[in-house]
Amino acid sequence: MRKQVIRKCYELVNGILESKKCNIRGHIRQYSKRGIRDKVENIEVMAGENEKDFEICSSPPRPSFKITTPSEFVKEETVASGNWLSLQKLTYKDPTGKAREWEAVSRTTRGSGALDAVVVMATLKRTLKYDCIVLVKQYRPPMKTYTIEFPAGLIDSGEDPKETAVRELKEETGYHADIKHISPAVCLDPGLSSCTVALVSAEIDGDSHVNLHPQSNPDSTEFIEVLTVPLNELLDTLNVHANQGSVIDARVYTYAVAQAQALKEHKLEPWVGLNKS
Amino acid sequence: MRKQVIRKCYELVNGILESKKCNIRGHIRQYSKRGIRDKVENIEVMAGENEKDFEICSSPPRPSFKITTPSEFVKEETVASGNWLSLQKLTYKDPTGKAREWEAVSRTTRGSGALDAVVVMATLKRTLKYDCIVLVKQYRPPMKTYTIEFPAGLIDSGEDPKETAVRELKEETGYHADIKHISPAVCLDPGLSSCTVALVSAEIDGDSHVNLHPQSNPDSTEFIEVLTVPLNELLDTLNVHANQGSVIDARVYTYAVAQAQALKEHKLEPWVGLNKS
Repeated sequence: MRKQVIRKCYELVNGILESKKCNIRGHIRQYSKRGIRDKVENIEVMAGENEKDFEICSSPPRPSFKITTPSEFVKEETVASGNWLSLQKLTYKDPTGKAREWEAVSRTTRGSGALDAVVVMATLKRTLKYDCIVLVKQYRPPMKTYTIEFPAGLIDSGEDPKETAVRELKEETGYHADIKHISPAVCLDPGLSSCTVALVSAEIDGDSHVNLHPQSNPDSTEFIEVLTVPLNELLDTLNVHANQGSVIDARVYTYAVAQAQALKEHKLEPWVGLNKS
Repeated sequence: MRKQVIRKCYELVNGILESKKCNIRGHIRQYSKRGIRDKVENIEVMAGENEKDFEICSSPPRPSFKITTPSEFVKEETVASGNWLSLQKLTYKDPTGKAREWEAVSRTTRGSGALDAVVVMATLKRTLKYDCIVLVKQYRPPMKTYTIEFPAGLIDSGEDPKETAVRELKEETGYHADIKHISPAVCLDPGLSSCTVALVSAEIDGDSHVNLHPQSNPDSTEFIEVLTVPLNELLDTLNVHANQGSVIDARVYTYAVAQAQALKEHKLEPWVGLNKS
């Protein structure tokens, strides 16, 4: 029975590829269950010991350009420097050897590490509740308005990213969290600044007594409102806040889109808010 | 039978809440299937017409601070200005009425709209292949190294975000895409800059003849390598690139984490790369 199913699938796959004049030889290496479910109807394919016989190479198309000669940093001049930020003119050599100029900004506050700050993507988990994502709303002078962001903060001297994440989440939101994962240094706007952050994934046990009545404790210059948004309503909620004049942080919005896409792809939830273009 | 199951669930739920001394009154409003599956064993709960009888309020805890008096922009002075960027000193009033200063950078290239650029989150879809996410690797002078980013570009004069997205994706990667969703203006680093982008979700029909042999066409100052990474390997692939010295863009990494979390939550795929902290 199983062999018959795989054979029928194989014939259909070959038919599709031939009809599309695809230049793909070989075998199914990894079954795309979604692809099969959507495009080869009435066939169920189960991974198993015989799958190697029916592989199709799933490697992506080859890039049309591959970096061989690297670009190279030459020098930087500081154009202006404030208490927190400085503006630089950079010179670098492109792969043809031509010298080119670029303008960039950097923080003057970075310590000895490669990181300026941490960003905490914290999920509030409670028994019998939808998981919530914890966000902060605050006035951001560069934007001249309020933003919705993940809790975040600059790394204090002598701190490691995990300590900063736990401290900032507690100060800004009142929650005690377990740190689950810390990313490598990632860049925020690499065409403009040298700024990097670690993205920290955290979970908050909302049933724990320490998290039942969270009290934030921001410093005296911070006025921060905490938002806990059910994950399944995140994208819609962000769109509502944007319509009301807040600016959503790109990482928060990306997180919401990626979650919505993943759930839509697996037909677990409607792709709320993503169908209008 | 159904009523018995719901009753048994209700009793168990009450028991859990009492044993945890949670201060939650009322009813189950939305079943958290995961919560029930994980924490109330041997009970299957199906949503249905009687669910209202068994609601528990799922609203998140009330914020401990709510913004009532808004902060207010006062003035900005330009400290220095280059061809592309300018550095400003801003003055604003915090909710107590106290005047405070902030430093910020902005792009001198922004047109009349609220947007500096678009970022294209494009999924390459092909029959019987895992969906791939399309990324670009390029030298970024501010980072003094190579980055892995979503294809992106500044909005040309007279363009709308959709046109920019289609044009930039074609130039940088060679792919023709269908635009599925455009975000409101989102900020990239709102404590530092006024920069905003639209996040554009796009799908590429990889079976279409126009996308079988994509040829990028970047301008003469751009040297861009295209990466197409299967979604189910995205986080691991990014970690490999980071280990090899490239810096991953925060939005790309956030996208990968959110996808991995969504799949883990629904037990569809292992939470690859996310278990080490």
